Amino acid sequence: MGKIRMGMIGGGEGAFIGAVHRMAAYLDGQFELVCGAFNSDPLRSKKSGKDLHLPDQRVYSDWQTMLEVEAQLPEDTRMQCVSIVTPNHLHFAPAKASIVKGFSVICDKPLCLTMEEAEELQSLVHKYDCVFALTHNYTGYPMVKQAKAMISNGDLGKIKKVVIAYPQGWLSSRIESTGQKQASWRTDPKKSGIAGSIGDIGTHAENISEYITGLKIDSLCADISTLVDGRLLDDDGNMLLRFNNGAKGLMYVSQISAGEENNLQISIYGEKGGLSWKQMSPNSLKVQWLDKPTQIFRSGGPGLYPIASKACRLPAGHPEGYIEAFANIYSEVANAIRKKKQSGKVVLSDYDFPTINDGVRGMRFIYKAIESGNSHDKWVKF
Amino acid sequence: MGKIRMGMIGGGEGAFIGAVHRMAAYLDGQFELVCGAFNSDPLRSKKSGKDLHLPDQRVYSDWQTMLEVEAQLPEDTRMQCVSIVTPNHLHFAPAKASIVKGFSVICDKPLCLTMEEAEELQSLVHKYDCVFALTHNYTGYPMVKQAKAMISNGDLGKIKKVVIAYPQGWLSSRIESTGQKQASWRTDPKKSGIAGSIGDIGTHAENISEYITGLKIDSLCADISTLVDGRLLDDDGNMLLRFNNGAKGLMYVSQISAGEENNLQISIYGEKGGLSWKQMSPNSLKVQWLDKPTQIFRSGGPGLYPIASKACRLPAGHPEGYIEAFANIYSEVANAIRKKKQSGKVVLSDYDFPTINDGVRGMRFIYKAIESGNSHDKWVKF
Amino acid sequence: MGKIRMGMIGGGEGAFIGAVHRMAAYLDGQFELVCGAFNSDPLRSKKSGKDLHLPDQRVYSDWQTMLEVEAQLPEDTRMQCVSIVTPNHLHFAPAKASIVKGFSVICDKPLCLTMEEAEELQSLVHKYDCVFALTHNYTGYPMVKQAKAMISNGDLGKIKKVVIAYPQGWLSSRIESTGQKQASWRTDPKKSGIAGSIGDIGTHAENISEYITGLKIDSLCADISTLVDGRLLDDDGNMLLRFNNGAKGLMYVSQISAGEENNLQISIYGEKGGLSWKQMSPNSLKVQWLDKPTQIFRSGGPGLYPIASKACRLPAGHPEGYIEAFANIYSEVANAIRKKKQSGKVVLSDYDFPTINDGVRGMRFIYKAIESGNSHDKWVKF
Amino acid sequence: MGKIRMGMIGGGEGAFIGAVHRMAAYLDGQFELVCGAFNSDPLRSKKSGKDLHLPDQRVYSDWQTMLEVEAQLPEDTRMQCVSIVTPNHLHFAPAKASIVKGFSVICDKPLCLTMEEAEELQSLVHKYDCVFALTHNYTGYPMVKQAKAMISNGDLGKIKKVVIAYPQGWLSSRIESTGQKQASWRTDPKKSGIAGSIGDIGTHAENISEYITGLKIDSLCADISTLVDGRLLDDDGNMLLRFNNGAKGLMYVSQISAGEENNLQISIYGEKGGLSWKQMSPNSLKVQWLDKPTQIFRSGGPGLYPIASKACRLPAGHPEGYIEAFANIYSEVANAIRKKKQSGKVVLSDYDFPTINDGVRGMRFIYKAIESGNSHDKWVKF
Repeated sequence: MGKIRMGMIGGGEGAFIGAVHRMAAYLDGQFELVCGAFNSDPLRSKKSGKDLHLPDQRVYSDWQTMLEVEAQLPEDTRMQCVSIVTPNHLHFAPAKASIVKGFSVICDKPLCLTMEEAEELQSLVHKYDCVFALTHNYTGYPMVKQAKAMISNGDLGKIKKVVIAYPQGWLSSRIESTGQKQASWRTDPKKSGIAGSIGDIGTHAENISEYITGLKIDSLCADISTLVDGRLLDDDGNMLLRFNNGAKGLMYVSQISAGEENNLQISIYGEKGGLSWKQMSPNSLKVQWLDKPTQIFRSGGPGLYPIASKACRLPAGHPEGYIEAFANIYSEVANAIRKKKQSGKVVLSDYDFPTINDGVRGMRFIYKAIESGNSHDKWVKF
Repeated sequence: MGKIRMGMIGGGEGAFIGAVHRMAAYLDGQFELVCGAFNSDPLRSKKSGKDLHLPDQRVYSDWQTMLEVEAQLPEDTRMQCVSIVTPNHLHFAPAKASIVKGFSVICDKPLCLTMEEAEELQSLVHKYDCVFALTHNYTGYPMVKQAKAMISNGDLGKIKKVVIAYPQGWLSSRIESTGQKQASWRTDPKKSGIAGSIGDIGTHAENISEYITGLKIDSLCADISTLVDGRLLDDDGNMLLRFNNGAKGLMYVSQISAGEENNLQISIYGEKGGLSWKQMSPNSLKVQWLDKPTQIFRSGGPGLYPIASKACRLPAGHPEGYIEAFANIYSEVANAIRKKKQSGKVVLSDYDFPTINDGVRGMRFIYKAIESGNSHDKWVKF
Repeated sequence: MGKIRMGMIGGGEGAFIGAVHRMAAYLDGQFELVCGAFNSDPLRSKKSGKDLHLPDQRVYSDWQTMLEVEAQLPEDTRMQCVSIVTPNHLHFAPAKASIVKGFSVICDKPLCLTMEEAEELQSLVHKYDCVFALTHNYTGYPMVKQAKAMISNGDLGKIKKVVIAYPQGWLSSRIESTGQKQASWRTDPKKSGIAGSIGDIGTHAENISEYITGLKIDSLCADISTLVDGRLLDDDGNMLLRFNNGAKGLMYVSQISAGEENNLQISIYGEKGGLSWKQMSPNSLKVQWLDKPTQIFRSGGPGLYPIASKACRLPAGHPEGYIEAFANIYSEVANAIRKKKQSGKVVLSDYDFPTINDGVRGMRFIYKAIESGNSHDKWVKF
Repeated sequence: MGKIRMGMIGGGEGAFIGAVHRMAAYLDGQFELVCGAFNSDPLRSKKSGKDLHLPDQRVYSDWQTMLEVEAQLPEDTRMQCVSIVTPNHLHFAPAKASIVKGFSVICDKPLCLTMEEAEELQSLVHKYDCVFALTHNYTGYPMVKQAKAMISNGDLGKIKKVVIAYPQGWLSSRIESTGQKQASWRTDPKKSGIAGSIGDIGTHAENISEYITGLKIDSLCADISTLVDGRLLDDDGNMLLRFNNGAKGLMYVSQISAGEENNLQISIYGEKGGLSWKQMSPNSLKVQWLDKPTQIFRSGGPGLYPIASKACRLPAGHPEGYIEAFANIYSEVANAIRKKKQSGKVVLSDYDFPTINDGVRGMRFIYKAIESGNSHDKWVKF
């Protein structure tokens, strides 16, 4: 039935995450980029489209035009899904319009700027039966899926402790004042929302911890800081967590941990053993047991649950990385889009990618973490 | 000027390396798969083409037909390059025909079956001024390029010792007797040539050691073994090496090192320090110094030479893997193909990908290693 | 002037930490064990003394007798220092008596059971000018000292973030109910005090974080849990920390993190870079920089500050472990004891071992952590 | 029965290995240093004895005097064993005299200078029923013993491949010309014998490979080099190995691998899996399986064979290092000495320490490696 025709909003020259989305979409040969509105500056949008080998007429000067025009194209030509890779403040409007026009949507995280926006998108997605994915890409790693499967199968027994760390160091100085593009919008409340690091990476941490454990954060106690002078949003957050099964936990996210790259890691302990996964060595999952030798599960290696092994493209020892994990999200979305096209409907819970509900939960996490950071009360209910 | 139109020979359903070549070609959005002859069985070729979203008329029943028909298509439609991903014995004929017809060629390694074939291809490439690449993909890793640059810049001083290890374990038992496809042809002299492990992975080891050091193997002393009963080709090889600058070294390759995945690693020592790189943790390069603390260079991190940093797609801490390294070969080939198209000619030494000359040298390595393995003399001149 | 004559209180057959103290005392040949009261059961004490090759007459049935008798022995025969390696509730009385009788004291941690005891010991130590050491042994590691020196020299710039983790898993089930000796007293409030894991390992975490950073914990917010049913003391604690220079931090300690061994680790971030040390790989110190490649400092290797290099016994690559670090405490104590003997007095701040002041601070930490755990207020002032 | 009274020959101020032997002897409280001839300069010997807290009259000006005088002392006073920690050329004479006088002997490696000396010592040891140990200390590590036990129990199936690497970098430049003591004698044929690196570290590599595998090297093919100009002995050696069960292997040892510390490592592959051990991370043993997840065995952890677990002093996660492994040799020797004293005789094969036979085999290894290095024939029979 051909590749899925994708349009992109944002992601022009110099963008980081737009390029990642394209590579993730291209990797498995399931998507074809057919159009885009890559930049709010029409000339730069055109330039990007040309670099991406798009025909000139399908490079639009703004996303509104793109949605209008594409919706009028013949069904076998027009884009089928749109990838929204703009800064946070530019998620809501194009997402809403895309849903309403019947396009499938792949949206970068966090979902949007406010809880109100989030809830409106959630009801629209349900109303329009939209295939809507939010790219919490770290859950795309095979070893994350293995961890999830081991826990849901009870291999570790009841979960008692969860530790999630996500230190980065790239905002250790006030680089937003130098015009650095990635830093500028992420530290600007108008573009990023009420949170900085909590929204940018804290939502990933929240999402992956709930994805793997199958638990929900029940309450939290946060110390949210801006540790670089003059910065307008938080760049560091430390939290105590309590989960809905009684498990205790901690989370810390930081963008001022100088020298750290992108060191997301999670350790989860149950009655029988504990597991640890580190994003920067993503193809190994260490499982330590109470009474037997430690095991290392490996991408492509023996002993994996199906959800993990089917997320591997290569035999063990051929490292798969960030883009491959990201592409696992895209591929599952492709499956859902094809299913919906074939059968007119699709049950999203049959697919393994983050949905609008993850997006709403992430927005709630941002709100609750910031609320707790400002509170003298110890615990804030999630 | 649009994506580069690529055809593929081999790589149908169930193939390992064909899928890798496609992902590598797709990743950066530089290539478009437009046609293929994926399997010697026309029906299975058709099936594969359909799975790959190709129009039926450009899925061919054999590569001869593909080359004939494509060569007749309008210039803006016909394939521009061909990717040859068949077993070794099916490299020579399609490569030769493709060169002669003026297509650019990306060929899997080792180059072919015999030195005669290799030399014939070499002269054809030169005669037809063909953009010809051999996918010694491990040299595509950014940290391999950093190692090369550090050595060529003299950071380590004169090189004195080189150790290359390439253990795998997947052929620890005689799985070729079970019909396992990858094992079957690799252990069959008619399809693989005079060598098994020496050709399959030894050529990678030879290539990467010469690529990084800038040295040439001058002579070698090999113990070549078949350690699984009933196997027809070598599955293990140990060698002493002497390099053309006087450096000493060792290489071992093995496919019966049970439990090993794909553990290519290399350590190189100069007068001032030594570096170590491990393919299974490809984004780090460890450099140990005689008189100062060890350094870890990282993909996307600070302190890289340009040849390394331009091979990175992502900021440090976002792991890039095997496919990304493979895609670095493809992208450099794309640059060369575009340059040739634009200016009518191209100087391959301006580009950073393995060429026909690497292929010929790899074939010589196979011959010399096997010769040494059969010899009572200690040293065989390379 | 001969080895320093040491007596031991506790540490009989089956004890863990007593054997460690002896190995630490023996290692560098500075101490000679001359007497002991190893067990409250006189017969078992005798048995232990015999196993330790002590003459029968200097193996005492109780510590009171030992202190009495030894104090009467000729100066060149009687013990000079006493090592107290009993459970927590048996630290105070023998420590007090030893100080008063003029013996030097090496006491296991935590200092005692209550703040009152701690403060009384503190004034006695000062009054009697006692060489008193508390074995927060983890600060004895060379790379911990290197970390401390780097920070005090400003290599990392102002410190902004501190993360200390100390997970163990050995109390994941209620092994105290099986009579396991180490577990039994540590989970018994009468023997351990008001805290379990917080006292047993939390005090180490507190001590090492303040030792390395040179900062003081200013306030904390703790979630203290007993996650194994029926246990009488905490076995898990998570805390937010604020340091006296404005740095933020977290600490977690756990004895129910199933599968974890003794995984104390600390990461500290300043303006220019961050460092990480892991007790289970103690001979490496990883320093990540904002703008240059990561460095690995190594025990016995190049680039160390004197405080670190003099704590190494062996050339780099010859691993030194837990006992060696412990012995570094003992060796510094030996230096102080000799100095005091030679010159009649000693300035403890000239020596690098934990003192009574560290012990008092540890007791305060226990109190404040438990207080915070029981409080609805977010922050407790340290 | 008291500690075992030990004398030491060599090991005065500035010596490396003498201090190690003392720490190893002290650690477990089994040995008491009672006398020594620490230096060929009597004044420096006295000084060392004083530093070691020995009574002046038992610090001898030469080893001959020491052996004479000690042999005349009352049985409950005189030394029982002698530790010989001199350079290689000073092993034979004191060892011979000690054996003849009935002392137990602990001798550093390699055994001596020549095969003739080695064989003479071997017959003396047997004739005098001497408890004689050679400190191939690396076999003292618990995880080395675990590896040995796993192989002898058939856990890996038949062994097929063995790789031993022992790179160091400390002789990367000609530091012997600066008077560096350790380098000077090791590179001096008169003191070191016919080999440099091959004797100094190659014998360790040979010993550990045969200890773990239970196999014997059957033949070898060596490339022996002196890679630093002006040096008088080899500083680098690469070898192909064939073992007596048909297994293939490689060994390389180097002291010019700049930046390497003391990186002894060994990987052994059988039909069912492979194991890897690295001396610089000695408390882990990685076992990779053909068809199940990798396991990490840990010192003090679950799943160990008795030979390994009894070699651990501490619970898992409390690192044990080089001295502890060395002390395991000493402790086994202590057991043998006590047994012999108690029962008049001892069967050395009941004990787990390297003997005179290991010493003779090490000398043969040196001879054969050097012979092969000088030969044009490919294989030299061991």
